[in-house]
Formats: sequence, C-alpha cells, structure tokens
Amino acid sequence: MTAPLPRTDPAPAAREGSPLGLHRVLEPAGVLPQAARRLDPRPEIWPDEVRVAVRRLNLDAASFRQLSEATGGTAEAMRAAVLEIVADRGKMQNPVTGSGGMLTGVVDEVGPASPLGLQPGDQIATLVSLSLTPLVITDGLAGWDGRSEQVPCAGHAILFGRSIAAVLPADLPAELALAVMDVCGAPALTHRVVAGHAASARPGSAGPVVAVLGAAGKSGSLSAAAARRAGASTVIGVVPFQAEADLLAGAGLADEIVIADARDPVGVSGAIEAAGGPADVTVVCVDVPGCEGGAILATAPGGTVIFFSMATSFTAAALGAEGAAADVTMLVGNGYVPGHAQLALDLIRAEPGVRALFDRRIDETGSAGETGSAEAKE
Amino acid sequence: MTAPLPRTDPAPAAREGSPLGLHRVLEPAGVLPQAARRLDPRPEIWPDEVRVAVRRLNLDAASFRQLSEATGGTAEAMRAAVLEIVADRGKMQNPVTGSGGMLTGVVDEVGPASPLGLQPGDQIATLVSLSLTPLVITDGLAGWDGRSEQVPCAGHAILFGRSIAAVLPADLPAELALAVMDVCGAPALTHRVVAGHAASARPGSAGPVVAVLGAAGKSGSLSAAAARRAGASTVIGVVPFQAEADLLAGAGLADEIVIADARDPVGVSGAIEAAGGPADVTVVCVDVPGCEGGAILATAPGGTVIFFSMATSFTAAALGAEGAAADVTMLVGNGYVPGHAQLALDLIRAEPGVRALFDRRIDETGSAGETGSAEAKE
Repeated sequence: MTAPLPRTDPAPAAREGSPLGLHRVLEPAGVLPQAARRLDPRPEIWPDEVRVAVRRLNLDAASFRQLSEATGGTAEAMRAAVLEIVADRGKMQNPVTGSGGMLTGVVDEVGPASPLGLQPGDQIATLVSLSLTPLVITDGLAGWDGRSEQVPCAGHAILFGRSIAAVLPADLPAELALAVMDVCGAPALTHRVVAGHAASARPGSAGPVVAVLGAAGKSGSLSAAAARRAGASTVIGVVPFQAEADLLAGAGLADEIVIADARDPVGVSGAIEAAGGPADVTVVCVDVPGCEGGAILATAPGGTVIFFSMATSFTAAALGAEGAAADVTMLVGNGYVPGHAQLALDLIRAEPGVRALFDRRIDETGSAGETGSAEAKE
Repeated sequence: MTAPLPRTDPAPAAREGSPLGLHRVLEPAGVLPQAARRLDPRPEIWPDEVRVAVRRLNLDAASFRQLSEATGGTAEAMRAAVLEIVADRGKMQNPVTGSGGMLTGVVDEVGPASPLGLQPGDQIATLVSLSLTPLVITDGLAGWDGRSEQVPCAGHAILFGRSIAAVLPADLPAELALAVMDVCGAPALTHRVVAGHAASARPGSAGPVVAVLGAAGKSGSLSAAAARRAGASTVIGVVPFQAEADLLAGAGLADEIVIADARDPVGVSGAIEAAGGPADVTVVCVDVPGCEGGAILATAPGGTVIFFSMATSFTAAALGAEGAAADVTMLVGNGYVPGHAQLALDLIRAEPGVRALFDRRIDETGSAGETGSAEAKE
C-alpha cells in the first residue's frame, strides 16, 4: 500500500485531480483519458482515486480478433502485443480498433475523497472501458495462452472518481456476473426508451412493439427481457439462422422470432413487418457493419432506433434515415445509465431463459468480452 | 419526354418499383441506393418516380475538398474526376468520403403514382443526398471551373417516391434558399428536442439552456434561432475565435457567446458552465473530428446532445459518455424531420440576423455545400 501522491509532486498534466482522470493524461494535453495516446499509470493515487490489484483482463472482442489476426495468435506473440501496448500507452487500448475491454480485481487502496463507495478487499469489475483505465502489468501475462479474450493478469489499475465499478455479487458465478455487467448498458437504455414509449402511448392502446436485432446474444437477450419488463406488447427477436432461433425459442424471450440477415435492409424490415412490425423501438445488438438501413426501415414513423453495436457508422445512420425520409429518433447507445448493473443482474436472476443463454455463451467461448457481438457471427 | 418504362422491360434489380429506389440498385443486390456501388440512371421513369432536368450540383464540402486535393484542382482534372464517378456509379457519391451533395433543376416528367406533389416546370432542390440519386451528366461539365462546390451541369436525375424535394421559394434568392434547405434538418430537430425539454420541465421553471457549438455557421445559426423559438431560456453560442464571435454578436442569436475550441473537452465545457451551463441541450454543428467529449461534458445529467456533424465518431460518443459516467441522451442528427424545409425558410425570413450570416457565407465561399461545416475551419 503506497501513500497518496504528495501534492508537491503532481502528475505532469495537472496540479489537481479530476474525477474524469484528466490529471493522468500525458499526451496529447487536454483530451479525456479515452482519447489520450498515453496515460500516467503510476500506482500512487490521487485523493479521489482507487487502486485495484488486477486479476483478469477481458479484452474487447474486436480488439482480441484484431490482435489474433495481426500476430498469428501464438501465446508468445499475443502476450508480447498486449504487453507492448500497455507499456507504451499506460492502458490497454488497441491502437487499431480503439477499443479496450474491462477488468476484474480486488480493491487495494481507496483515496479519502473517492465517491465510489468501495472498500479494500472488495472484488470488483470495472464498468468503464480499459481504453481509459491506467494499467500496469507485472507478471508478463505468464498465465495466458493467448487463445481467449479472458487474460489472467497481475498488476494494478486506477479508477477515477467517475470510473464506475461494481462489486461482484456473491450469489452468481464471477464469470456470469462479468458477462452480464459487460453489456448492462443495453438493457438499461432499452428499458428506459420502451417505458417512455409506453407512457406516451394513447390510453387503452397496446404497449410498444420492440424489435431486437441479435436477440439471442448477450446484450440482445437482456434487452429483450428488459423490453418486456418495460411494457412492450410484442417483442420480435431477429436472429441470423435457425440454431439461434432455436436458442431464442428455448429462452422464451420473444413473442415472435424472425430469421433474417440484419445487413439486408429490405429482407429484415420485411420480415419484422410480417411478424407484427413495424417496431416502435428497434434495438441493434448485432456487432457487424451495415445494419443501419434495416433498423431504420423496420421502425415506424415516430419510433426510436437504439444502436448498441460498436460497428455502427454515424454517417450511414444519418444519411440512411434522411435518404429514406424516415422520421425516426436514432440514439447512440450510451453504456452508462444509472442503475444499469443492478437492473441487468436482476434480469439474469429473474429470467432463467436469459441465464441459460448466458451460461451457454460462456461455455462456448470461454469469454465474456466487451460486446455481445461475437455470437452473431458464429 | 420519354414514356414510362414498359413493365415488360424491368430494370435488372427488381420487377416492381419501390419508393426507396431499390429497383434502381444494380450492385450489390439488396442494399439501399445510398449503400449501392452502382445505380441504374436510365431516364425512363417508374410510375412513382420523377425525372429532373439538372441545372446545378452542389457538392458536399468534404467531397469537394477531397477531390481538389487528390486531383490538384484544375478545371480539367476536377471535371474528369466528377464525370468518371458519375459514369461509373450512376450517382455522384465520392468513393473516398462517401458523401454526395444536393442538386437543383427543373421537373421534367412526373410519374402518375408519384407522391411528391411536383409539376413539370417546377424549380426544385433535392433534400436527399446525391449519394442515392440516379444521375446522368450530358454536358461534360463545360461550365464548371472546378473551383467551387457549385457545379453548373446539364443532365437528368431521378427522384424516388420517398426522395424529398422542395420547390424553390419565389421570395428568396435561389442560392440562399439552397443554402438554407441544405442544412434544414438541424433547426428542425433542435426545435423538436428543445420543445420536448421545455414541455417536460417543472412548472414555473425557466426554459432549457441550449448550447450550440459552431453557432455562427449555417446549421448552427439556424439551430440557435430554432432553439430560442422552441422555448430556450438561454442560448449559449460557442465559436472558435473572435471574428466569429463578432459575427454572432451582430446577428443577435445568442444570449451568451463563448470562444472555445470544441475539440478541447475541458476548455469548452468549462466555458459553457461559466456562461450559464451546463446545457440541457447541446447541439454540435462543428464539422471537425473530436468534439464528442466536450459536448458530453457540457451537458447536464438528463440532458440531450444532438450530433449534426458528419465528422462525429459513433465509438467516441458511446465510449466517451460511458467513460465519464454521463447520463445524457445522444442523438444521431437525422437530416429528415417533417416540415424541416418550411421551418428553416420561415426562420431565415423572420430572423434578419440569420439572414445576414447566410448572405455573408454565400458571398465568402460562393458555395452552398451539403454541410454547414466549412465556415468553422476558415
């Protein structure tokens, strides 16, 4: 346990700590830690920071894939690639994909002004991206075979005043809790938007129709469950092929199940229409490029599209809606909604169908990466 | 005037016309015209189409800049570049930037099932992007010197059932009307969002605080005027330097004027805070990359950020908000809102300050490109 950094020895970037971690940004000056090329990962904490002894990194699926392809995927090459990034940048942010992942660990030291409510010894998962989290690795990643997104790891990481983290619940396996918290922004925002549509509907009318693209995935299944809880009258689950449809049917999460390629605007919107659409709310949880047009066409005038996929193109969404004269509200899926982790954990406890899907995903992939995406491409 | 295409000779892609123009997509099959590599620009119209005799193309600013840099910018090279793209793709969509622009012309033939309400002889501007509009150029662009985004042009273009177009108003110079309609989605969506915040505010409370980044530009000045009309209590205009601040002050559109670099999250959010923020609604009209963080930090919890800049990064917005634990709603600026052209033209007629800004921009640049962006970089 090191002492808080003396105020006479400030980090280069700032003399005062900032809840956003601006004082840890080494370059370029003035940007947020997410956008920084390099962070200061020193172990001494500022008064509102928390230091965590890292146990495991969960690399974002897109980042893991890029590293595997670029290095050939051997243990040695993968370790070297991650170690080099972290040594160079002071954080695990893949320079090609821009993405990070999350981590689990044990709280080591809590600054006197930390607002996070953590105690030393707490087992936690971070709910902010590794791409903004100062990190030092001390074990050379000796326990990692390079073949899984889950990376056993020793070292330390720093949480800022606004770096959301969650204590791992005692009643769920750590890996399951992690996988759930990893995508917890999606069900929380879905719940809020669907509830908003339900509240503004004409009295006596049925609840909103909700379509979930990628409904058998992690973020998709939680979002489908959240939509139903928020008052959806019909949940239409869209999946790419029969095996996923069977999984989704077994989980009992969707009123209608549609097999369609989310990248085919005419096909997917037609299928959703035939299944009870158009949707009042369309939730995009398929992490492949090119799903913007289909989501827009599948949505009723006055409806809302929520894009959770990191493969979403801002331009394709904006020009696609304009080109189709589609009066739809399009939301950038914000990964932070107050209470998001709790809502998602509640859903996994209450919905055996979602739980079964998650257990299966974890068995299949041995991973709980940052997005609910990989499954859509299996 | 050619006859409608006989139904025994359908275009290759489809046997039936589609209001989205799917029947004009040659490759790849099944995508929307916006995403297509190649469209069928034949002059014969389907029953719900309109053919326009083109007078002028207005290239999107980003596309024009790219072409100038890539070709050296001589008249000959610029003409050749545009002609080659249009001949190859059947539409003017820059393969590098993905963007198009808009066009003006005279309605030549209206299909019996067209829902657009146009008559032969109407002088119109298209409100959908050139990137999805079938186009043939017949004059070799002989009247273009390659130095302006405005391209005198003869040829024909096709409007689909859902291709929004507007008749040029008789009381405004065509160039002004064009420049206004070019950015009319921004004030319309701003008006809707600000009015929504005003309606949901506590009774007796002041209206929402609205910050507009790039408030002295075309889309920015219209958005500022729309925000005030929709019930904003305070409009904070953010501009990059003193000359723009003077322009904005002269226009009388903002209650507070802030000079800040929108790419500096701490600087711009601090300045907005000091000017009466944080904002309930933040409108991003600065078409340079890296403005996501500042807009998010400048916005109050529960507030809304509207991204109109085509330089917006979806990932930076999503991860930026999550990383800052910012509970803000983030909207992809949809270029289509019902009544958008009318609202923007009303504002330009009613607000001499906005009109003066537009007149100045048109004099300066000789252009009315697709975005209100170039001015922010001058």
